[in-house]
Amino acid sequence: MANLKDVHGYVDSHADDFIQRLSEAVAIPSVSTDPSRRGDVHRMALWLENQLKRYGVQTRAVPLGQQEVEGKILEYPPAILGRIGDDSKKKTILIYGHFDVQPAEKSDGWDTEPFELHVDRESGKMFGRGSTDDKGPVLGWLNVLEAHHALRIELPVNLRFCFEGLEEDGSQGLDDLIVTETSKGPQGWFHGVDCVCISDNYWLNTRTPCLTYGLRGIAYYQIIVSGPGSDLHSGMGGAVYEPMTTLISLMGKLVSVEGRILIPGVYDGISVADSSELYVPFISPSQTEAYLSHSGGPISLSDDKATVLMGRTREPSLSLHGIEGAYSGAGGKTVIPATVSGKFSLRLVPPQTPDDITKKVVSFIEDEFAKLKTKLKMKVEFVGGGKPWVADTNHWSYEAAKRATETVWGKTPNYTREGGSIPVTLTFADNLGVNVLLLPMGRADDGAHSTNEKLDISNFLNGTKLLGTYLYEVANINSDK
Amino acid sequence: MANLKDVHGYVDSHADDFIQRLSEAVAIPSVSTDPSRRGDVHRMALWLENQLKRYGVQTRAVPLGQQEVEGKILEYPPAILGRIGDDSKKKTILIYGHFDVQPAEKSDGWDTEPFELHVDRESGKMFGRGSTDDKGPVLGWLNVLEAHHALRIELPVNLRFCFEGLEEDGSQGLDDLIVTETSKGPQGWFHGVDCVCISDNYWLNTRTPCLTYGLRGIAYYQIIVSGPGSDLHSGMGGAVYEPMTTLISLMGKLVSVEGRILIPGVYDGISVADSSELYVPFISPSQTEAYLSHSGGPISLSDDKATVLMGRTREPSLSLHGIEGAYSGAGGKTVIPATVSGKFSLRLVPPQTPDDITKKVVSFIEDEFAKLKTKLKMKVEFVGGGKPWVADTNHWSYEAAKRATETVWGKTPNYTREGGSIPVTLTFADNLGVNVLLLPMGRADDGAHSTNEKLDISNFLNGTKLLGTYLYEVANINSDK
Repeated sequence: MANLKDVHGYVDSHADDFIQRLSEAVAIPSVSTDPSRRGDVHRMALWLENQLKRYGVQTRAVPLGQQEVEGKILEYPPAILGRIGDDSKKKTILIYGHFDVQPAEKSDGWDTEPFELHVDRESGKMFGRGSTDDKGPVLGWLNVLEAHHALRIELPVNLRFCFEGLEEDGSQGLDDLIVTETSKGPQGWFHGVDCVCISDNYWLNTRTPCLTYGLRGIAYYQIIVSGPGSDLHSGMGGAVYEPMTTLISLMGKLVSVEGRILIPGVYDGISVADSSELYVPFISPSQTEAYLSHSGGPISLSDDKATVLMGRTREPSLSLHGIEGAYSGAGGKTVIPATVSGKFSLRLVPPQTPDDITKKVVSFIEDEFAKLKTKLKMKVEFVGGGKPWVADTNHWSYEAAKRATETVWGKTPNYTREGGSIPVTLTFADNLGVNVLLLPMGRADDGAHSTNEKLDISNFLNGTKLLGTYLYEVANINSDK
Repeated sequence: MANLKDVHGYVDSHADDFIQRLSEAVAIPSVSTDPSRRGDVHRMALWLENQLKRYGVQTRAVPLGQQEVEGKILEYPPAILGRIGDDSKKKTILIYGHFDVQPAEKSDGWDTEPFELHVDRESGKMFGRGSTDDKGPVLGWLNVLEAHHALRIELPVNLRFCFEGLEEDGSQGLDDLIVTETSKGPQGWFHGVDCVCISDNYWLNTRTPCLTYGLRGIAYYQIIVSGPGSDLHSGMGGAVYEPMTTLISLMGKLVSVEGRILIPGVYDGISVADSSELYVPFISPSQTEAYLSHSGGPISLSDDKATVLMGRTREPSLSLHGIEGAYSGAGGKTVIPATVSGKFSLRLVPPQTPDDITKKVVSFIEDEFAKLKTKLKMKVEFVGGGKPWVADTNHWSYEAAKRATETVWGKTPNYTREGGSIPVTLTFADNLGVNVLLLPMGRADDGAHSTNEKLDISNFLNGTKLLGTYLYEVANINSDK
């Protein structure tokens, strides 16, 4: 891997250039959920496409359709697809990332302007919206491409890119794009891909790199209870069945205050964690400490850290989110709301699926409602969801990522699962039928989605080296191919 | 009562003039809750004061202070006080009413312009905002004054007026005004008042006039549960105690779906209704039918109409209003809210008081929260309230109103209590220490606060006669004075 040494050298000698490029990217406020910023998201797409082209990547900007916002038609930002390398003797890796960001205003509580990258050499941190989510990781790939291009070194693998600008707005159109490309067979953009690598999550703590192999699924519901034709004044209280009373009663039957889901059959088939799962992700108390405090420490459901981590990642959970149609303002209003809709969702783990869980949820709530014998109307609606995902960590892609981590960081990575969802992970896994690896660049304390979002300079530079090294390990590793 | 006959004759021959004056009053959009309409409320106050002056009433416009709205100082509309007659041989009656109205826009679903009185001679109804709440009744008193003034007949009693322009906005400053005037002793505006008469509520149905002698009190609370420093993503579910789960659990312990309050001691001391209470207000099934359907008919807590009416007026109730801080929009959001505030209130009946009930509510919820053994924080806050009010129906003022109703409508009135509150009722009763009578002009189907608010022409004209006749009956009746 003599080439790799040169690549690392290039990263070291071009650190300032790479940081400068990150400044450029952060300066484009590509907020996908804000219609007034839509032009910036398109600008960011073009910027990224031009960067890829500079290093010999063949690109395609794929339109993803339109949306209507307050009577105006807005174009969705395109997905930027890229391909470089077509050597049938090499493995082909698909890289996913996103170039849109969460909203940010200095007045939200930022110490510096969110769309001006603030490089603090003393602390080694770079502050700015998108620094870690997900412009830093996306630019990590550009850095790898630049190093090879500048050094005239051939890439050790074929690369395919799929970058989107709507990740923070529900990845509109992306699933369709993946399904369409897959259905084209050999003509499809993703044809021949051997595995997928996504850098869009974070270490469990601030010290140990990790490989993430599992995400929980989700199933979101609302219970709608109605009765009166319109809201009533509470002077009517005592005369009528009140929808809120029944809704609160039903919502109270779903989960215990200790987080135990009370819907019969929900835990069916969930396997007991084996020893590798129990210990590998939770190596030392000092590591989980940081994670636990990040998880709200003093309100954790258990004082045993492993139990808390397992509860968040390997067990299902049920959260009550709120009520639509009831009074939600400050102070008091003496209303008896006519129709109220209670929102809740379950986070799912294998073998749970939204379909199976929906049957159990609906049947349980309908039974409980019938027992109440009110004169109100009730229905349970499935709002949306996605299956859980767990990858095979024995796959060569994980092995390559482990070796790369050991080389670059000098540490064996944690193997982790996350409590949330990244739906595109499952779309890739299901449609392409290949292994997906989540290889994060940033740390637990980066504050993605928060004020003062940051990326450590060391994570940006070592992260760039990690992505590059991963490609070499993939190329060298013994595999079926 | 020869004079009274002339007064009735005047009402009959001046019906069109009275309706014309109501048109004028409705045309002033005196919406007290809308700062942009504040000028109209002041204009309405001046209009009313000038009307009173025309008939020899001595008036005073009392400033009630200021409020700040979006950085601007807005003057509250003044209360208009009036006095006519100082004959120590006559009884002195204090009349209360309000000249502000609820907001209304044609686009809310009105069939006609809300601030143009639409007189439908065929149905005998007059549509317009404020027609029944409360400009119609206030103008009923103007009609009585005009008749006496035009006919040069002396009023049979001394009258005092207290008209306010902030009733729909919480009667700001009015309690202070009443307390201040009372504290002035013989110099106070309300000195020497023998009883109070208020026309600001409605019949139980569309056929039978009523005298209202009771209102429920109210005690409003919020349960605030907090834990995390900020909202969490539900990917964290299973790791932490969630404030919503605990709040829903606590709210679910307050009241059964059948409306039974589950807080120990809440029903202490409430007397069983005696036969007069049980039957007098609920004369016939046909009358309660209309009331019941108005109460949401198909969702009534009982099929026994008397039980429903008693539940609404003579029993306490507890309504769950909503949750502040949780997700309340459409669709789904996967949030674990950090701090949630559950709102509920009790409607109170004697001998319940907000003070006593608050002790029971707080102690119960604190005990139940302690049993849950979570790591969250919880507090119960009393948001506000008022005592219930029940008047002595054997008082001469009620007897006079009964006789007047029989004379004008040819029917014995229902004696009713209401489920809601009119706080000024209690302020008058407590401060002046005199009997208060609620003598409604409009019907159950008038739609105060709703679209297409109306007042029947017959209720306006007979209502005017009723108010006048009541004064004569008061003057003639045998009393301690």
